[in-house]
Amino acid sequence: MSSYRDAGVDIDAGEELVRRIKPWCAATRTENVLGGIGLFGGFFRAHFPDMTDPVLVSSVDGVGTKLRVAREAGVHHTVGQDLVNHCVDDILACGARPLFFLDYFATGHLDVDVAAQVIHGFTVACQENGCALIGGETAEMPGFYATGDYDMSGTIVGVVDRARVVDGRSIQAGDQLLALPSTGLHTNGYSLARRALFELGGLGLDHRMDDGRSLADALLAVHRSYLHPVQALLNQVEVRGISHITGGGMVGNTRRILPQGLDLALDRQAWEWPEIFRLVQRCGAVPDEEMERAFNLGIGMVLILAPGEVERAEALLAGMGERPLRLGHVVKA
Amino acid sequence: MSSYRDAGVDIDAGEELVRRIKPWCAATRTENVLGGIGLFGGFFRAHFPDMTDPVLVSSVDGVGTKLRVAREAGVHHTVGQDLVNHCVDDILACGARPLFFLDYFATGHLDVDVAAQVIHGFTVACQENGCALIGGETAEMPGFYATGDYDMSGTIVGVVDRARVVDGRSIQAGDQLLALPSTGLHTNGYSLARRALFELGGLGLDHRMDDGRSLADALLAVHRSYLHPVQALLNQVEVRGISHITGGGMVGNTRRILPQGLDLALDRQAWEWPEIFRLVQRCGAVPDEEMERAFNLGIGMVLILAPGEVERAEALLAGMGERPLRLGHVVKA
Repeated sequence: MSSYRDAGVDIDAGEELVRRIKPWCAATRTENVLGGIGLFGGFFRAHFPDMTDPVLVSSVDGVGTKLRVAREAGVHHTVGQDLVNHCVDDILACGARPLFFLDYFATGHLDVDVAAQVIHGFTVACQENGCALIGGETAEMPGFYATGDYDMSGTIVGVVDRARVVDGRSIQAGDQLLALPSTGLHTNGYSLARRALFELGGLGLDHRMDDGRSLADALLAVHRSYLHPVQALLNQVEVRGISHITGGGMVGNTRRILPQGLDLALDRQAWEWPEIFRLVQRCGAVPDEEMERAFNLGIGMVLILAPGEVERAEALLAGMGERPLRLGHVVKA
Repeated sequence: MSSYRDAGVDIDAGEELVRRIKPWCAATRTENVLGGIGLFGGFFRAHFPDMTDPVLVSSVDGVGTKLRVAREAGVHHTVGQDLVNHCVDDILACGARPLFFLDYFATGHLDVDVAAQVIHGFTVACQENGCALIGGETAEMPGFYATGDYDMSGTIVGVVDRARVVDGRSIQAGDQLLALPSTGLHTNGYSLARRALFELGGLGLDHRMDDGRSLADALLAVHRSYLHPVQALLNQVEVRGISHITGGGMVGNTRRILPQGLDLALDRQAWEWPEIFRLVQRCGAVPDEEMERAFNLGIGMVLILAPGEVERAEALLAGMGERPLRLGHVVKA
């Protein structure tokens, strides 16, 4: 006699998880969310009275093999925050503010405590970004994930008025690059970093860096959301392009928003690679070119501004506690 | 000297995949999609001139361990269709029609041919449902998935006018259940089915069923979309509740849309379990109760209608080639 539980799927654990996360999800509700949890879909009123031609902007992401670091460190709420913030930053790069988020969490055997930690992380970041968690799927897939492993993805939907979409089209030669620092690797380059640090470098998660943090803390530093400073900037300064620095690195991600015929002239002396990146490079003997392609190297978001806007933008950002960096400018290719 | 490729991540393969799928994705574009692929987000105009109070309805899903059957059979486009149709049916159960879809595809080592087949499946189903594929994330996660394995999730966003949301609130005792047949297991119960058929039953994917199909074909039958018949019905008949039969089975899914104080009175003689379910039960000696909880048992969607609407609904559905079944009715609990 065989049952779903014998086959490795525990419907009761799934129900226990839903009970546990329900109040956290409810706390992320915003005024346009309708209905409760437990129906077949999440409901959100498409009610944007302050916009002339509202455009929904959406993005889907994962956090990659940063999950392996989370598992090894036994810390699961930060990767939940990473995922939401990554999504927020992606649509922010289009000028959009977040409306709602949905998650997918898959594992071999559902550990309710671990899943609850991850999902708690989603709800913390959702609240910080004024974004409602309105749907999720938890999949128990015996045989697909090693014990203790899980994967997840998140989808965000935001909105921007059409006239205020940021898409890089108005970028011109001479425009300036202003960058906001990252908090660490964010969610990119972890396969390479883990190989360099742990396999080749022989370091452990408890290795102390010069700045006093453990390697675990440095690697799990939360992918930050740039929503609040960048939204404030968008309200007061003409921002011609925004690049969220993810896989492909600073150059790869920033180049793809430039109109044809333009290129970047970077001032590579403008910033120093944070310690974690220097450590990865040293342990793995990773060439500069590869480092630039795989990592953000300390730059999380790049704003492209008309030259006359830079000082005002810097002052505004500094007033919000940011430390913007001048990275270079746009040139004819 | 270490590189991202040495660490198991092949950025070039990812770019090759994007090149390959681009025209398929472009073919799913609908009139409200803005911009192209390659920016940080997908753009969709929130322009619903035929609605008074448009509500966005969203859902996220996976296809579970049906993926293992796909891998073993070497057939990857059907699971892509499964995922989209599953999402379409979830929001259809709220009365919504689909607008756009985003996918997440994760694997240990990116096989461009396999990923392209899966994504082609997404685009086929998106086109059938008038739904634009406007975003996706492909994650190469060395060490997370066994060779040849992959996981995926999909998120759909649709829309319904608020006055036409189907949420079960108006269901009353005496209302009738009208069901639409499933095409097979759809996307639920695969861990139990595989254990029963392959481990306990000793069958192979090439086992011939009485209906002439191989077990592979029966297990990979595409989770159908009910969009076209049910949308037509929603335009002409008052539908009080819709239940998409997924994990939890027919009773579990239909009960959760009933107002408090009501229950289901099922006519279990109204339909026969299709062969694939009888085979699973026989091979695995699975109790009836467990079968009902894990599988749709031949019922893909249940519509709840006022008694006076049933005949008209049956005629309408039959006119579109459907074979609706009367399953029973709603009673006081």
